[in-house]
Amino acid sequence: MTERITIALDAMGGDRAPDVVIKGASIALQRFPEAKFLLFGDEAQIKPILAKLPRLAEHTEIRHTDEWISGDVKPSVALRTGRRSSMRLAIDAVAAGEADCVVSAGNTGALMAMAKMALRMLPGIDRPAMASFFPTQRGESVMLDLGANVECDAENLVQFALMGDVFARTVLGLQEPRVGLLNVGSEEMKGHEAVRSAALRLRSPDAPLNFHGFVEGDGIAAGEVDVIVTDGFTGNIAVKTAEGTARLFTEFLRASLRHSLTARIGYLFAHSALRKLRARLDPRRYNGAVFLGLAGICVKSHGSSDALGFANAVGVAVDMKINGFLVQIRDGLSRLSALPAPQENKPQSAAL
Amino acid sequence: MTERITIALDAMGGDRAPDVVIKGASIALQRFPEAKFLLFGDEAQIKPILAKLPRLAEHTEIRHTDEWISGDVKPSVALRTGRRSSMRLAIDAVAAGEADCVVSAGNTGALMAMAKMALRMLPGIDRPAMASFFPTQRGESVMLDLGANVECDAENLVQFALMGDVFARTVLGLQEPRVGLLNVGSEEMKGHEAVRSAALRLRSPDAPLNFHGFVEGDGIAAGEVDVIVTDGFTGNIAVKTAEGTARLFTEFLRASLRHSLTARIGYLFAHSALRKLRARLDPRRYNGAVFLGLAGICVKSHGSSDALGFANAVGVAVDMKINGFLVQIRDGLSRLSALPAPQENKPQSAAL
Repeated sequence: MTERITIALDAMGGDRAPDVVIKGASIALQRFPEAKFLLFGDEAQIKPILAKLPRLAEHTEIRHTDEWISGDVKPSVALRTGRRSSMRLAIDAVAAGEADCVVSAGNTGALMAMAKMALRMLPGIDRPAMASFFPTQRGESVMLDLGANVECDAENLVQFALMGDVFARTVLGLQEPRVGLLNVGSEEMKGHEAVRSAALRLRSPDAPLNFHGFVEGDGIAAGEVDVIVTDGFTGNIAVKTAEGTARLFTEFLRASLRHSLTARIGYLFAHSALRKLRARLDPRRYNGAVFLGLAGICVKSHGSSDALGFANAVGVAVDMKINGFLVQIRDGLSRLSALPAPQENKPQSAAL
Repeated sequence: MTERITIALDAMGGDRAPDVVIKGASIALQRFPEAKFLLFGDEAQIKPILAKLPRLAEHTEIRHTDEWISGDVKPSVALRTGRRSSMRLAIDAVAAGEADCVVSAGNTGALMAMAKMALRMLPGIDRPAMASFFPTQRGESVMLDLGANVECDAENLVQFALMGDVFARTVLGLQEPRVGLLNVGSEEMKGHEAVRSAALRLRSPDAPLNFHGFVEGDGIAAGEVDVIVTDGFTGNIAVKTAEGTARLFTEFLRASLRHSLTARIGYLFAHSALRKLRARLDPRRYNGAVFLGLAGICVKSHGSSDALGFANAVGVAVDMKINGFLVQIRDGLSRLSALPAPQENKPQSAAL
C-alpha cells in the first residue's frame, strides 16, 4: 500500500480501555506500517502505555479529552451530552476529513447514533445496517443487519444486499460474492412480503450483484452464500442463537472430556487439535461489526475484545478504505436505482 | 397409567416408512404397555414387518389404504386429493374420537393443513403453532412457533405463550415453567410492536403463567427460560441456525481430531466421552414437533428419524394426552381472556 491511512481511535471505549485499544493499534501497525493513529482520550492514561510502544508512539497523535461515553448510557443521552467525548471526537475527525476511518470498542448504540449524526447517511441509503463476519464450513461469510433496524421493508433489504456485496468484495476480497436473503424456505413463495419483494427485485438480471436466492438458517454456517441479508430483528437473533449454540457445544464437550480418566488422557493427546479448533472459531478473528450505509467508515469492536481482536477491527476499517468501499457503494447504488420496483405476491408458511 | 391410550399412526409417512413407523411403535409399546395402535397404510407392506413383532401385533389394528401423501406435494393439493391417504385417515381417527392422538413422519405442510381442517382449532386460539424441544445448558426447553406462521401479532404471541406453558407442564413435567419472549434485547422498549405489546400483556399479575420477560438469542441454549415464544419466521430461522452451528462445530471438531497422529490417539481415548456428547445432543431425543392450538393431539416426527426417534415422538403425543394438555389449554384460555388488552409503546433497536 502506498497511501497513508489515518485511523481515528476511541481510546476510552471497551472493557479494558485504553490498554487494549493502544496495544491493538500496535498490532495493527505491523500489518499497516504506514498507518497513522489519532488517539482520542485521557492523555494521563494513554501516555504511560504508549511510552512502552515507541514504534507506535512515532505513528500516533494523542488528542486529549477527559470525557467519554460509558457502556450503559442511552444513545439519545450520548448524542446530547457527549459532544466532547472521546468517541464523538474520533467520529468527528472522520467527518472533518482528518481521518479515513474510526474504530471504537465502546457503547454500540451511542456509536451508531453519533456516527449517523456526524457522518450522515450515504445518498440513496435509507438506513444503516450492522454487518459482521462468521466462520462457515467454506470459509467465512458476512451477515447484515445484526440489529440496527428491528423492522425492514423490501427496499431496505435490497440496499443491505448491495452494501453486503460491496463489503464482501472490499474486506473479504471476493470477486463475485454470492448474496442470499435469509428466509424460512428456499421456494419463491416462502416468507413474508418484504423478503419476497426484495428477492423479486434482486432476481432482476440487471441487479448489480450475484443473487443466490433464499437461504435458510442452516445455510449460514454451511456457507451456502458469502453474504446473508436479513432484517435487524432476525439477524440479531440468528447471530446470538449461533453464539449460544457454540457455547453450549463447548460446555458439553468440556464436560464430556473431564468425565473419566481415559477421556482426560484423550484430552491430553487431542489438546493441540482442540486448540486448533478453538483458533478456527476464535471470535477475535471475526471481530469488528461494521456500520454500513454511512458516508464514512466506522467499525465497532466487541467491548470485551483483547488487543488482537481490536487490531482485526482496525484491519476491517483499513481494508474498507484501501479497497474503495464508499466509492463502490455509490457506484452500485446508481445501478440499483435503475431497477424496476418490486411487486406483491402471496405469503406462505415454512415447512420444517 | 390406568387409561388405555389409542394412537393413530400414519404408517406411510417418512423416509423409511412403514419400517421405521412400525419399529418405532414397538419401542413405544415398551414404555406404554397398555397402548393400542391404529396403523394406517398399505397392508401388504405392513403385515410382513408386523409379523416379526408379535407383541406389537397384539396391540395393533391395521387400517388398509393404498393412498399416501408424498413428501413434495403441496398442502393445498394434499387437502384436495388426499382424503383417502394414510395421513388423513389417521387424523380422521382422532377427529372421530376413535384415537387419542396421531403421529406422522410425513409431509409437514400437508399434515398441518389436514390436521387444521379435520381437528379444527381450539376455541380462543387464532392460529396453530409448531413447537419442539431443544437441549440447553440446564436441561431442555420448548420453543414455538417454528414456522407455521411467518407473521404474528401480539395476540398470537400471547396465545403461543400459553400453549408453550401448558406443553412444558404436560410433556416436560415442569411445575412453573419460565416463559420468555424472544427479542433483540432484554429491556422493555426493545423490539417491534408485537413483542412489546405481548410482553405488556404477559407481565400482568393475572396472566396464567410465569412470565420471565424478554430472552435474547444466546439465552435459548443457555436455558434462561423453559419456554421460548416467537413468531414462525424468527423461530424457524433460530432453530435452523442452531442446527447449522452444531453441524459446523461437529465438522470442525472431526477435522481437528483427524489432523495429526497424536490427535488421533487422543480421539481413541476420548472416544467414549465424545460418544456421550453426541448422545446428549442426539436429535432423536428431541424428535417430535407438535402442532399446538388444534382441538386434537397431532405430533410430527422428523421424516429422516429412526425407530427410536419415532418412538419419542409417540411418547410426546401420549404424554400430552395422559397429562391433560387439551383440558389445561382450555382452562388457561379462559383465564387469558380476562386479561386487559395490550397497549402501544415505541420501538427501539438492538445493541449488540
